[in-house]
Amino acid sequence: MTTIEILQQAKAATAALAMLNTEAKNAALLAMADSLETNTEAILAANAQDVEAAREQMNDVMIDRLRLTAERIKGMANGIREVIGLSDPVGRVIDRVERPNGLLIEKTRVPMGVVAIIYESRPNVTSDAAALALKSGNVCVLRGGKEAYRSSHAIVSALREGLRREGLSETFINMLEDVTRAGANELMTAVDYVDLLIPRGGAGLIRACVENAKVPCIQTGTGICHIYVDRDADLDMALDILENAKTSRPSVCNAAEVCLVDRKIADRFLPMLKARLVDARKQNGKEPVKLRLDGDAQKIIEGAPASDSDFDTEFLNYILAVGLVDGVEDAVAHIAKHSTHHSEAIVTRNTETASYFTAAVDSAAVYVNASTRFTDGGEFGLGCEIGISTQKLHARGPMGLCELTTYKYIVRGNGQIR
Amino acid sequence: MTTIEILQQAKAATAALAMLNTEAKNAALLAMADSLETNTEAILAANAQDVEAAREQMNDVMIDRLRLTAERIKGMANGIREVIGLSDPVGRVIDRVERPNGLLIEKTRVPMGVVAIIYESRPNVTSDAAALALKSGNVCVLRGGKEAYRSSHAIVSALREGLRREGLSETFINMLEDVTRAGANELMTAVDYVDLLIPRGGAGLIRACVENAKVPCIQTGTGICHIYVDRDADLDMALDILENAKTSRPSVCNAAEVCLVDRKIADRFLPMLKARLVDARKQNGKEPVKLRLDGDAQKIIEGAPASDSDFDTEFLNYILAVGLVDGVEDAVAHIAKHSTHHSEAIVTRNTETASYFTAAVDSAAVYVNASTRFTDGGEFGLGCEIGISTQKLHARGPMGLCELTTYKYIVRGNGQIR
Repeated sequence: MTTIEILQQAKAATAALAMLNTEAKNAALLAMADSLETNTEAILAANAQDVEAAREQMNDVMIDRLRLTAERIKGMANGIREVIGLSDPVGRVIDRVERPNGLLIEKTRVPMGVVAIIYESRPNVTSDAAALALKSGNVCVLRGGKEAYRSSHAIVSALREGLRREGLSETFINMLEDVTRAGANELMTAVDYVDLLIPRGGAGLIRACVENAKVPCIQTGTGICHIYVDRDADLDMALDILENAKTSRPSVCNAAEVCLVDRKIADRFLPMLKARLVDARKQNGKEPVKLRLDGDAQKIIEGAPASDSDFDTEFLNYILAVGLVDGVEDAVAHIAKHSTHHSEAIVTRNTETASYFTAAVDSAAVYVNASTRFTDGGEFGLGCEIGISTQKLHARGPMGLCELTTYKYIVRGNGQIR
Repeated sequence: MTTIEILQQAKAATAALAMLNTEAKNAALLAMADSLETNTEAILAANAQDVEAAREQMNDVMIDRLRLTAERIKGMANGIREVIGLSDPVGRVIDRVERPNGLLIEKTRVPMGVVAIIYESRPNVTSDAAALALKSGNVCVLRGGKEAYRSSHAIVSALREGLRREGLSETFINMLEDVTRAGANELMTAVDYVDLLIPRGGAGLIRACVENAKVPCIQTGTGICHIYVDRDADLDMALDILENAKTSRPSVCNAAEVCLVDRKIADRFLPMLKARLVDARKQNGKEPVKLRLDGDAQKIIEGAPASDSDFDTEFLNYILAVGLVDGVEDAVAHIAKHSTHHSEAIVTRNTETASYFTAAVDSAAVYVNASTRFTDGGEFGLGCEIGISTQKLHARGPMGLCELTTYKYIVRGNGQIR
């Protein structure tokens, strides 16, 4: 089917899915999970073809992301089953007011309609996104990377089999067949059909969506996250937070990329920083962090000089840019200039300084004495996550089921006129 | 100053305004209102120049919109004073969770930052928008129509005088000097400076913003609103609602443009409709409604035949398109195809039919037995309105102070790592 035919079919399915109650949606999710497991063999066969075809263009890390196993499929099925337990936002009355004229106004959560997700080569995003969309009452249109096309197609077939078994329309879950760049652009500009577009992937994909989308699009994921170590910091705590934020998983968006150090404590803290992130890690057989130092930091410890662009780079690797600042106001100014508005942290024992930092830093998540790595739907108690918004409109930070909905005003009267 | 200089100045002012407490903002609003009145003479002199210059290109209605009087300026000042009484959304904790690891997470309302408003020739929008932006902690950048430039400039000067008197930066309120189309485009694409763009005006202005904006933009105001008269309607109530929705103020976006009539009652209702909207209004010296009838309605009453485009037109005038439908499902299907997702109403005594309508119609406001004219911030109890959103992202329907804010997560820990 052409992209436009698939989108028409998706749009046509929105009203039926929006009106499905929670029990029916949960039954569908259970059937989808079971069907994934039942179809393990077919999915693995399709995946083997994808892996075989990708072998020449992809490195081992990328192949590993693409590869499925029976265990990974079981994990995907369990992921769907977890969504059953999440509370359903649809139909929730956010605000209710009875006006003096007797009008009863209920601000009520409703699904967006058609949610499109563009992603890359992890096939598990297919089932993950489909489950969250279904639970929030949204028809999904999935557009995965072409390297994973056969795998995603087999997964969608299994999910649709689950829907059919529950007597539901398989058009609640849709996958685009055109995986060319032109196909992606067609999706991004389908203003009559797509109510929300969420890109999940690297900076290039996100930039392409934000720049080309004519449909409502959420800017997700790019994180140049800062840790500011204040003059009043517990320096040992600062080291723990910094090592965690930088090294526990450097490839993710909530990992720290920049450490700003208050000039007042730089002489003491920078040698500690180097000892922990570079020397101790070497000794313990861990990957050491490569430091990129500004001019002032270089006078105190050894490390490569930072170029200007190092303070504007999402390294996603064992690299940390380090700079000195003149206290919290200067730190806030640096962050305002270089941050992607994802997550920033201050380490300090001074509550006044902390309050200034949380008020003045304009990012989705602002931390006091904790690692930026916690910016995550699960860690925030949302139970799931479809992405992390770095924009201010609609949703900010981790997006769960609620952020996949909008609201409408339902107004009941008995003949009121104005 | 150039547009970019003004925008830089606005951006630089955001942190100071975001951190202002409610008392300080209310004091500023009071000073702004007083200053407007003190400067009445200067504003009227500037306005006289605008009116004089516009006399040749504008008709009387447009001139009237542009013209200010001492009384209108007093009304603007009182409008600002009313904003003082509205509750301040900034700093409100929407959600608070303490995680098992001890992290305290507070989802907290914060200003957007820089809010830009593009509007047309009503000078009162200047003070109205400036007051709502200030109360919600946002720096505003105003871009009014060039016909009203001198008036708006004089109003902004007065408002800034009020800010200065309170010891605040006048850069909290900004007005663009470049009123060319290129200037508007510069504003719409200033992604590093504008956090939210709200167009206020006719369909052409809104379309230009939605199509050209690279900054986050709210689609406002276009309303092709429907009234569906069901087989179970109280027909007298339907007439009252229809006449009110069509004629009480035809030029506004929440006025009805289309009446859909259930075929089962068309023989009875259509003659009543014509008698009320056409004949009785003529007799009473009121402007009669011009009916545009679909083929089936023409067989029952007299009226001009509707062209296809009549069901997709925001007439903003004493014109009503009338069509027959086969019950509520057909009405919902018609609305899905032709609505601008603003406001739609059903008139029925059947609660089941009403529930189906409110669930299935995908618009910002869905009414049962009441006029669509109530879609308005004041009527909904928001106390004010910066515009009516017809999109689903961020805000839907009337936008008040709360819809001018976003949120951030403030996370407090004692050294938590992940």
